[in-house]
Order: sequence, then structure tokens, then C-alpha cells
Amino acid sequence: MNESESTAAPMFRTPVEVRWGDMDAYNHVNNARYLTYLEQARLAWLNTLDKSWLGPHCAPVLAAAQVNYRKPITWPASVEVILECQRAGNSSVTVGHHIIDAEAHDTLYCDGHTVLVWIDPATGKPVPLPDVIRAAVKVPSSP
Amino acid sequence: MNESESTAAPMFRTPVEVRWGDMDAYNHVNNARYLTYLEQARLAWLNTLDKSWLGPHCAPVLAAAQVNYRKPITWPASVEVILECQRAGNSSVTVGHHIIDAEAHDTLYCDGHTVLVWIDPATGKPVPLPDVIRAAVKVPSSP
Amino acid sequence: MNESESTAAPMFRTPVEVRWGDMDAYNHVNNARYLTYLEQARLAWLNTLDKSWLGPHCAPVLAAAQVNYRKPITWPASVEVILECQRAGNSSVTVGHHIIDAEAHDTLYCDGHTVLVWIDPATGKPVPLPDVIRAAVKVPSSP
Amino acid sequence: MNESESTAAPMFRTPVEVRWGDMDAYNHVNNARYLTYLEQARLAWLNTLDKSWLGPHCAPVLAAAQVNYRKPITWPASVEVILECQRAGNSSVTVGHHIIDAEAHDTLYCDGHTVLVWIDPATGKPVPLPDVIRAAVKVPSSP
Repeated sequence: MNESESTAAPMFRTPVEVRWGDMDAYNHVNNARYLTYLEQARLAWLNTLDKSWLGPHCAPVLAAAQVNYRKPITWPASVEVILECQRAGNSSVTVGHHIIDAEAHDTLYCDGHTVLVWIDPATGKPVPLPDVIRAAVKVPSSP
Repeated sequence: MNESESTAAPMFRTPVEVRWGDMDAYNHVNNARYLTYLEQARLAWLNTLDKSWLGPHCAPVLAAAQVNYRKPITWPASVEVILECQRAGNSSVTVGHHIIDAEAHDTLYCDGHTVLVWIDPATGKPVPLPDVIRAAVKVPSSP
Repeated sequence: MNESESTAAPMFRTPVEVRWGDMDAYNHVNNARYLTYLEQARLAWLNTLDKSWLGPHCAPVLAAAQVNYRKPITWPASVEVILECQRAGNSSVTVGHHIIDAEAHDTLYCDGHTVLVWIDPATGKPVPLPDVIRAAVKVPSSP
Repeated sequence: MNESESTAAPMFRTPVEVRWGDMDAYNHVNNARYLTYLEQARLAWLNTLDKSWLGPHCAPVLAAAQVNYRKPITWPASVEVILECQRAGNSSVTVGHHIIDAEAHDTLYCDGHTVLVWIDPATGKPVPLPDVIRAAVKVPSSP
């Protein structure tokens, strides 16, 4: 298990389209849209996996989000979201993120992390991480 | 200076209208919209102050946001955003937030904080907090 | 049946909160948000009615929208949406709309109309307008 | 001048990324986002032109939008926006649109049109269409 953001290896990266309408009256991409970009990347990542990460008694919910706004994004821009696993617990995964320029890779727009928890939607209680998620985040399945 | 979230006194509270369209395919208010609610409350707060918090060489930017999703919001809902100052530095203010139910006040939908930094838009460099902000966050003006 | 927009009587009016984040890089409320305001008003209207307008074999879908942008909306602004029935058919209702300033009522931000069709979600086929909708739009129920 | 939607030749086509977050609680792309897709395509089109379509005394504003919702869009989906000139006046252009499936081209999600008017932002009055726009929409420049 690796709790250090700086050394976590990327587990997924994807371009996300920046829309003109993502900008607000400051002529920069609005702060809330960064969460939309992260959501878009997270779902693209999950969609690369076997669908067993989602079931009637097992679904991920977003428990927390932390975003550091490093540099404004101005349309037109090409950005890429990089996700890495920072920590995996019994029921949760801390997913680090970087949003970088898709062309100038050393331009960092944002970093931070989100916490995903798998729950039973019927009860709202946490459930063990699905095996497909354990495998994806490179954490051994529980015995 | 008070760095404890739990003991900071509210400096502003405002209702925010929950829109049907804020919900996503999970039938809950989308995670990104919480930042929109916070932004709406933050601007309502700033608009209660003398306009000297904004000028050609002095403007706030959002440096970071942290959100804990405590309970899903389902439309129709009445929510209220509470802002409190958690910390004030030379150029920045850490604003704690709680989003609660406007009717059932002990229902907490979200807490966390954002960090605002005042900069000179021309240079991008931090500038001292405007006096009106120091006064509003109850931190003595620098001598 | 009244097909003239100019003479249709308002059947519902409601304030809608304008968010700072509704503005785009032109410093005006973005054109797409007008549809969000109309949606918000439409749902508020439907929520004033007996719930029989919605059922397992009977649900409204938006078939068309037409918007004339008369005057930009700049935050902060107080707006009100006025809905009127322009036409009711067997399965559809044409709902005229005006978005006006909530204080200066002769300031018209937008007008136009939307078309709602009631369908059976299972088949996608149109179904007769629910009685509660016929009554609400002041069109006699079919014999 | 061609006022018929059905026979207007496409002047621009572009893919637009459908986001998971574009869906609303009905699990379909929300009606307002269609205007966002159209806006995104419109700006991509304008950005292919010489920048003389925009100046201190000459800027386009959206005067009207009409959208027919033909078929729900469900994420994940690949869509393409097609724009064609339906009519060009002294100051305005009526731009027809089709949103189709990027893979199954005969799947039509939406059609309709928008009206763009060029104005002098300082006065709010209409100005003649810029030559670059006249050329782009294949309408002879005024003598």
C-alpha cells in the first residue's frame, strides 16, 4: 500500500475535452468543473474494468474530494487527467489526481485526491472492495 | 486566529436553491455542484462587504477546495450554506463550510473548507488581505 | 384552445435563483442556462399538481424548445419565469414562457415555448394527456 | 440564399464529448446540454475562420435557439454536431444544426437552428455581417 502521493504510479490517464462553456465570468474554467473532469476520468477508468465493480449490493460513492488549483485553465486547452491509487482500505480507495496540459506535460493545472467508498446501496453500509478494484489498484485481495 | 473547524464561529449563512438539474444519473445532487453552492454562498458573503475587497491590483482566487460528502442531497431540498473563517494568513483565508438542511438543521450534507488567496491579477503574486476582509474574518489588520 | 402566445393567460409563475456560476466568459448568463431556468419552473409547476401526471405508463418528455434571447441577464439579478399554455393536443402541451425581471416586470429577458409530450416510457409511444394536466391547462378532458 | 433546412449543405461538423455528468436524473443527457454541445460546435467553427469575425465593434450574440429533441442521448455515446447555413441576412445568420450519432450516422438525436446576430457591443446595435462570415456561409458580400 502506498500512501504517498508523489510516488504513486499512474493507474489511468485520459484526455478530457475542455468546453468553452466550462469557463466562468473570470474567463477561466470554473472551479466546480474540475470535479466534473475528475468524474469523467474516474468513470472512463472504471469502464475499462470488468463490470463486477458495480452490482445491486455494491456501488461506489464519492466520500471526499480535495483539489488544489495550481494554474487557471483557459479555453481552448487540451488537458489530461492522471489518476493514481494513493491508498486502499477495506472499503475505500483514495485516488490521487493530476490535471495536466495534454501538450505541455509539465504544466500542472490541479492536483489532489478523491476518496471512493464502496457501499451496499440498500443499507448504505460500507462493503469490502470488489476484487476487480483491488486488482486494479494493485492491492492484494483479502484472504 | 482559530484553526479548528469545530470551534470557528459562522461568519455568514445563506440559503441556496437546489435545482432539479443539479441531480445526476444517480438521482442525487452531483458532487461538482457542491462547489457551485459554496461559490454562490461565498459571493453572497463578499457582496455584503464594502467593495474594496476587489480592485485592479487585488482580487481573490480559489487556491484549494476540500469537500466531505456526508449525505446525499435529493431534489426537492432546501439547503443552507454556513461559512466560517478557520484561518487567516497574510494573503489567504481558509473558509470552513457546512451545507445543512434548511429545515432540519442537524442534517449535515457536507463540510470541509476552501482556501482563498488575494493576488494582484497583473502579476499573479499574492498581496496582503484587504482590510475589509481582515475585518470580516475578525483578524486584526496588520500594523 | 388558445394557440396565440400573446393572449395565453399565465398558469404558473415562480422566481428562479440566478447563480454567479450561470454566467459564462461573456459575463452574461449562458444561453443554455435559460433552459435550466425553464426546467426548474416547469418542475415547480408540475409539483403543484396531483401526482397523477406521472406514472409507470405515463411520463412527460421534452420534445422541443424555442428560446428568444431578448436581453442579457447579468448576475446579480432576480428573475421570474412565467408559464402559460399555448396549445394542448391529445398527447402534448405547448407551454409558452417568459423570463422577466422579478423587480422590473417590464424587462423581458426571454420568451418562447417548449413542447411537452406524454409518453409510455415502456413503449415510447404517446399517451393521452393525464386528466390533471388537461385540467391544469384549462382544456376540456376528451369525452 | 437557402432557407430550406433540408437542403442546406453542411458547413462544419465536429465531434463533441458527451460527459457522464451531462445526464440528469432521467439517465439521459439533459435538455440544456444540447445547447452546450451546439455552442461548443459553433465556437469550434468560428475558430476555423480568420479572427476578423470578432472585434471591438463587431461581435456575435445568440438571438434565438430552436431544438427538436428526437432521441435521448445516453452516456456513453459519441455524438457529432453538424452545422449548416439556412439563411444569411444583413446582420444575422440562421445556423441549422443536427446532432447525430458519430458511429450510426442515421441516428438523429436533435435538429433545429440558432440565430446569430452581429452587433456593436458598445451600442448594442446590429452591424453588417463580417466579410469572413459572409464568405463562410457562402453568401456574396454586399457591394
